[in-house]
Amino acid sequence: MKIEALDAFYLRMPEVKDIGDGSQDVLVMRVQAGGFVGWGECEASPLTTIAALIAPLSHSACHPIRSSIVGQELPGPDEMEAFHRRVRERSSDLLQTDHALSGIDIALWDLIGKVHGAPVWSFFGAKNHAKTAYASQLFGDTPSATYEDARSVPPEFRAAKFGWGPFGRAELADDREQLAAAREGVGPNRTLLIDTGCVFGHDVSRAAERIALLEEFHVGWWEEPFAAGALAEYSQLSKQTKTKLAGGEGAHTADQARHLIDYGGVGFIQVDAGRIGGITAARQVANYARQKNVQFVNHTFTSNLALSASLQPYADHPSGYAEVPLAASDLAIAIGGMPWVLDPDGGVSAPGNLGLGVTPEPLAISPYLQEVEIRWNGKTLWNSLDNKL
Amino acid sequence: MKIEALDAFYLRMPEVKDIGDGSQDVLVMRVQAGGFVGWGECEASPLTTIAALIAPLSHSACHPIRSSIVGQELPGPDEMEAFHRRVRERSSDLLQTDHALSGIDIALWDLIGKVHGAPVWSFFGAKNHAKTAYASQLFGDTPSATYEDARSVPPEFRAAKFGWGPFGRAELADDREQLAAAREGVGPNRTLLIDTGCVFGHDVSRAAERIALLEEFHVGWWEEPFAAGALAEYSQLSKQTKTKLAGGEGAHTADQARHLIDYGGVGFIQVDAGRIGGITAARQVANYARQKNVQFVNHTFTSNLALSASLQPYADHPSGYAEVPLAASDLAIAIGGMPWVLDPDGGVSAPGNLGLGVTPEPLAISPYLQEVEIRWNGKTLWNSLDNKL
Repeated sequence: MKIEALDAFYLRMPEVKDIGDGSQDVLVMRVQAGGFVGWGECEASPLTTIAALIAPLSHSACHPIRSSIVGQELPGPDEMEAFHRRVRERSSDLLQTDHALSGIDIALWDLIGKVHGAPVWSFFGAKNHAKTAYASQLFGDTPSATYEDARSVPPEFRAAKFGWGPFGRAELADDREQLAAAREGVGPNRTLLIDTGCVFGHDVSRAAERIALLEEFHVGWWEEPFAAGALAEYSQLSKQTKTKLAGGEGAHTADQARHLIDYGGVGFIQVDAGRIGGITAARQVANYARQKNVQFVNHTFTSNLALSASLQPYADHPSGYAEVPLAASDLAIAIGGMPWVLDPDGGVSAPGNLGLGVTPEPLAISPYLQEVEIRWNGKTLWNSLDNKL
Repeated sequence: MKIEALDAFYLRMPEVKDIGDGSQDVLVMRVQAGGFVGWGECEASPLTTIAALIAPLSHSACHPIRSSIVGQELPGPDEMEAFHRRVRERSSDLLQTDHALSGIDIALWDLIGKVHGAPVWSFFGAKNHAKTAYASQLFGDTPSATYEDARSVPPEFRAAKFGWGPFGRAELADDREQLAAAREGVGPNRTLLIDTGCVFGHDVSRAAERIALLEEFHVGWWEEPFAAGALAEYSQLSKQTKTKLAGGEGAHTADQARHLIDYGGVGFIQVDAGRIGGITAARQVANYARQKNVQFVNHTFTSNLALSASLQPYADHPSGYAEVPLAASDLAIAIGGMPWVLDPDGGVSAPGNLGLGVTPEPLAISPYLQEVEIRWNGKTLWNSLDNKL
């Protein structure tokens, strides 16, 4: 069975604000083979990723991505790693490849699941274990705002994460008030996680000033103290604190995630399947993490299509955490429906449906569709009108 | 003085072949401020990089690159690192950023040199030391072809490199014949360098089978035995062989190059200024390498504009090697002139001219100019006709 078509749909909210919310636009990929249809979502700049699909050949290590997909034999589940290696080799000098491949890989897994009549996770293991969902949100501008947000985390969540905002940017006393407010709001019995959003760059001493604070408030993990590639700094901090470090959302290859485990000393490796190279690369990291006694966690901040994809690679891990977007944008709802329903214990599981179990509805997403046309020497390389929903 | 304009010129040979030669197309960047003009060159997929310049805002960590450049105050030489950090922070979720920033950074350094009336290297140190040029070429399809190529390396070159081709893909005996031919052709007194082009992926044992061969023929370095991120594999091999390992051309951040030094055990770190984030990032690596007793080497396979940019970051290192493209394509000559002239000892130095000292001539490059138009919801985001040479 040959891959007959690869389409990409650039969706965007009517107004996009210069704020951290990464769910304001999205590139949705659709692959087709033998009458089956698979859907995936990239965590990527949509227009740049479209260009990567169709950019003219530069040389043998810089092919347009689409040329490695359409017309190829649909790989079986055991052939996806080899399929990946070929795409990456043919486009290794095109940096945007990993982001583009992520959405395509997810769509291919959805398709493979449908063709084989099975959920994606079933190719990785017999069991689909629930994970403890955590509610992910930003620190408020003031400690009292953080307290209110923490209080309003729905009771079914057994864990909550606060991040970014003013934390790490002001005095130590201010950070203490923020942490105290978050802990008081979520209460003593739920897990409190902290995400400092790379704020300390490569500065270990500034980060280390917060060690006592995070330990005092029994923080479950300390996410992204440093820039994504600051492995030596991760390692130094990990040796000074009892709080386990977490990171990895910036990784766009499985190797980069492995480096955080091998050299950064993280206790949690957080992988965005929509960026690291899809389910195939995320699964490689999940396997490696398990082998190294590091907990694999998804990174997801957009739709239920992305959430389903991100839960598949470690569905067979018997326990762990899962990031669940708390408030879905209208665009995210259009793609993947209403926020995920947790089980009564606050757990979240990959769907039992075939493939990924989340299929965008053309009529629902079409209001967000962006028109893009790319012309080169008078020839149309891309016209969104050719990508029919 | 404000940065008034950033233009990008997509240049391409009339025919681009599906071969390894990365000089068949190029994206040249031009920045302007206060009547001065600076030029730079990316080692990047041109169309994808243009899209990264103008892609609509996705969120606060995914701005189009051009929005971080035009209208900004022209940084002084000491402000370039801060300028960099800001561009990368504003576009950290746009993977193609590092490749785009590389060309812009090089053009900015050229501009800064012209504004301050000094060559770029003079901002890094008082001296501009020559490096031993090596001629870079591919293994022939047969040992006798390799022998002929090695024989025809111009006599002024004190070192020659052979790479890719059949090496590592066939039997050990075949690799031995290739190495013997290369060594016989270059003679016993010139340095022979070998580039295995990532052929062993993550497979240490297959690479290790070649250790005795490379030692037997006194190979000066063993370049890219593994995939760019295979740090543990680099480290394992480095402990088994006396031949120093080399790598780094795939790095698109200074951190990634540091990892090859810290964890990969390389003896030579090879950086492409047109990919790692320009001269600013390459200079960070050059400083770090020196501190760690690792030799910094440029990676350059295109024009003299790229070669000049790649020599600046380590001009103050008292010795070392430099990669010099042996045969320039017509496009490379149009951009930066005829192949670089070596000094009588086979050395190569950065020019003494202001800035980078290599300025493309509009009439020479215009025959290679590609027309690109990118439209979004009926609005023209990019039209190459607006970028006037």
